[in-house]
Order: sequence, then structure tokens, then C-alpha cells
Amino acid sequence: MAINLKRYKSTIIGIDHDPTTLDYAFTHNIVDETTTSITKGIRGADVIILAVPVRTIFSILNDFRDSNQVATKQNCLIMDVGSTKVQIVHCMEKLPLHMQPVGGHPMCGRETSGIEAAHGALFNDAFFMLTPLRRTDPQAISLAEDIVKLLGARPHLIGAASHDRIVATASHLPYSLACLLMSTAIKSAEQDELVWDVVSSGFRDTSRLAACDVTMMLDILMSNRTAISDELSSFDIYLQEFRKAIATQDEIWLRKFLSQVRQQRNQLFIK
Amino acid sequence: MAINLKRYKSTIIGIDHDPTTLDYAFTHNIVDETTTSITKGIRGADVIILAVPVRTIFSILNDFRDSNQVATKQNCLIMDVGSTKVQIVHCMEKLPLHMQPVGGHPMCGRETSGIEAAHGALFNDAFFMLTPLRRTDPQAISLAEDIVKLLGARPHLIGAASHDRIVATASHLPYSLACLLMSTAIKSAEQDELVWDVVSSGFRDTSRLAACDVTMMLDILMSNRTAISDELSSFDIYLQEFRKAIATQDEIWLRKFLSQVRQQRNQLFIK
Repeated sequence: MAINLKRYKSTIIGIDHDPTTLDYAFTHNIVDETTTSITKGIRGADVIILAVPVRTIFSILNDFRDSNQVATKQNCLIMDVGSTKVQIVHCMEKLPLHMQPVGGHPMCGRETSGIEAAHGALFNDAFFMLTPLRRTDPQAISLAEDIVKLLGARPHLIGAASHDRIVATASHLPYSLACLLMSTAIKSAEQDELVWDVVSSGFRDTSRLAACDVTMMLDILMSNRTAISDELSSFDIYLQEFRKAIATQDEIWLRKFLSQVRQQRNQLFIK
Repeated sequence: MAINLKRYKSTIIGIDHDPTTLDYAFTHNIVDETTTSITKGIRGADVIILAVPVRTIFSILNDFRDSNQVATKQNCLIMDVGSTKVQIVHCMEKLPLHMQPVGGHPMCGRETSGIEAAHGALFNDAFFMLTPLRRTDPQAISLAEDIVKLLGARPHLIGAASHDRIVATASHLPYSLACLLMSTAIKSAEQDELVWDVVSSGFRDTSRLAACDVTMMLDILMSNRTAISDELSSFDIYLQEFRKAIATQDEIWLRKFLSQVRQQRNQLFIK
């Protein structure tokens, strides 16, 4: 994110607990200044963007709530880019009143993570959801939208609960299925290792999300567990119908089912 | 397939029921001659390759069994490229004795199909399984391996039952999951259409196989239903464990599970 904002803003301060990450960001001209101290880094800030795993966001927001040392500018915009929003917005409610909170979530993740994975085209044309709070000033919302546009992404205002339901379908269910596919294949490969020689581009793509960072994803699964449980429950109903149709050779059901999903998939992603 | 063999063999005869496909193949220099008649097309053939959906392969093999007009050369190699092997090999057992059957399955499918999707690099370095029969002459097996190598692929001899179990894991389970993901998302989108705006590269990749040709896949699901049912049953066990772990917030189980599948995924496909 900083890699993009650097082009427009005068001073970007990179804050991280890992000096190696900060060195990388500084030497690659991604940030102007670096510090391992949050208190120091946000002093006099106009905008704070929290780009860390979801439960680290909770912890930082709670620190801000409890601290007397949040010496940002008046009406400092505080955004995050965490993948779930209900619990984050809940923490944001309790921030000091001189801060203007807006939850954020860009739909442009990759299975790679860390500073080395940074690249300027990541946000191009991405859908970027923003979940402002009732307490958030309209000017702060506008600023958040402007930042999203600067990144090359498309801002969309949405409620936190709607957000969490939608991403359970669009992101967290696919991640779960990729992991469950891998576990099933690991089990099969215990019988015959040739499985790993045979996997092709289909398996590679379907399992890709299983390579996502575990801590990041565990935070997501835990902080959005209700919506994810609902999605898995809905998935399970189709799974059992599908299993039954295969076992009973119900070709009429299968052809209708496969044709419907194929049609929707082809509409969604034009070849 | 013909697009590759054309480079090495003197005469490739394209046989299809659709004249448009044959015209395309001829004008694009993929084949030397074309015909809509199988009987005519295989007359005097050294090699026959059946590249059609699995149950169309059954039907052609059964026609050869019942016909007195299979006027190929003596010891004509007959191969297929169908995605399941047990039932095909079963049909091949009954072929006239002047034919030398070898089941074949290249691991290089794409979600696109039809003659327009043909391209010469498709087989490059692909794993290509061959399932010869007990009755098959060793020379015919060698010829099948040579053809696979000519395509740029890597031949691997395997029993039909092992083949079918392995591809249930590597291909048919991923296809099933892609379809079930799509159906679950369609259901969610009935509540909130924004789902379709939010889907990103993760959803795109996980759902990619749902775009596969329905007739081809239905043939595969039906002809390999025992192995696929076993895989879905194994998958279901992990799904229920996973759901339980999320519902009970069993982070120890989840972290171990997600870490194991991530490690295996990263070993399998080096970034």
C-alpha cells in the first residue's frame, strides 16, 4: 500500500516490529522514514493505515483506546485493511474522539505475503470496501475514498455485517475449500504417492489459497466464524446432494447442477 | 493432439461428426485429411487415437467390437485420452485381436474445449499415464510411449484402477469442489448480489474448473463414481472436523491443520 501512496504523499512513515522489514521498505524507497515504535510513528499523523493481521489490528486499536499518548493530528483518519470488519469496527467505536475511523478491505489479496511481495499494481481496479462508523465525519469518509482512488482501486461503502457475510462467500469459503482439498489429497497420497506427480493446473489453481499465511487466515477464520460457519453449512447441503446424485447416478440432477454453475462461472469471468 | 503429431507423421486423418470442426482442423493445417465416417477414417490406420468424452469412447470401442469392418492394419495401436480408465480398459478387452489397445490420459486439461482451444504447447512436460492391457503387445506399448514423448509429455505405465483412484483425488475432487463453491456462492448472491462484485483472484482460481465442459465431466463423474465417492467421503470427514474446529474456536487444531496443508502446498508448487 505504501508503495503506491509514496507517489502522492510527502511523508510516509513505516512502522513495523521487524527492523529487517523496515530496512527493506526504506532502501526500496517504499517509505520515507521508519520506526519500530507505534507511539512515535503516529505522532502528528494525518492518516494511519493498519496493514497487519486482524487480531493485531484489534490489539493496536485497543492500545489506542487505553492510551493517553495517541498524539495524532485532530481528525486523523484511521483505516485498516483487515479482511473482516464487524469486530474491527467494534474496536474502532472506542477510539479517542480526535480520531476518525473507517474500516477498509481491498479485494486483491495474494497467497504471498511480507514486504518482498509488495508491488505497485496490486490495487489496480480492485474493489475496495469501506465501512465507516456512525461517529465518522463525512470529510474523513471522503478522504478514505480519495486514498482508495489514489491506489487505483474502486471504493465501495458498505455495512460491516454485510461485508463479513459477503467475504465469507467470496474469500473465506474458497480458502477453506483449498485447505480441505489439500488435506484430502495428503490422505490419498499416503496410499499412493503418485498423486503428487499427477496433480496438474486444475489442482494447482483449486488449492492455491491453501498457501496463504496461516496467522493471517486464522485471525480471519476466528473473527468471522459465524458467517463462515453459515457458508460451510450451506456448502455442506450442496455437498451431500452432490454425493447422493453421484451414488445414485442421478444424471438429470447432475447435468442441471453442473450446467448452472458453469453458466454462472462463465458469466462471472469472461475467458 | 493432432496439432503435435502433424509435425512428425506423414498422414493424420481427422474424424469428427461436425464438418465445421473438420474444416477448422484442415484449414489450420492440424490434419491432412478429414472425414465424418469412422469406418472410412480408420481404414488402413497404424494408430487410432480416440479424443472424445469418455462415454463416446465406450460407444466407439463397442462398435469396433461388434463390427466386421474394422479394417485397420495388423497390430494397429488404439489409444484414447479419456480421463477415467477402468471402464475404458474393460471395453478395450473385447476389441478385435488385430488391434493393440493402450489406455491413455494426459494430465494437461484446460477448462476450455473444442478445436479452437487446440495449441501445440498443451502437452509440454505433462505427465501422461498409459494403461496397457494384459493382451497388449510390448511393441504397441513402446509405440504408445514414443507417441507420448513426441508430444513432449512424460509417459508413465500404471494399472487402470490405480489411475482412477489417483485422478479422483487430483482432478475430479477439485472439479467437484469448484462446482460446489459456485453453487454456494449463487445461493449467497440471492441474498446480496454484491458477492459477484467482490469475488477476486482467489475465488476465480478456486472456481476455475467449474467452467469445464459439462458432458465431458458428467461422463467422468459417472465412469469413476466409486473412486470419486470415496474421495468425497474422505473430504467430508475433514469438512466436518474443520466446521467443528471453527464453531468451537479450536485454534490449536486449526493452526496445525492450516500449517500442514500450507507446507504441503508450498512443497508441491514452488512459487
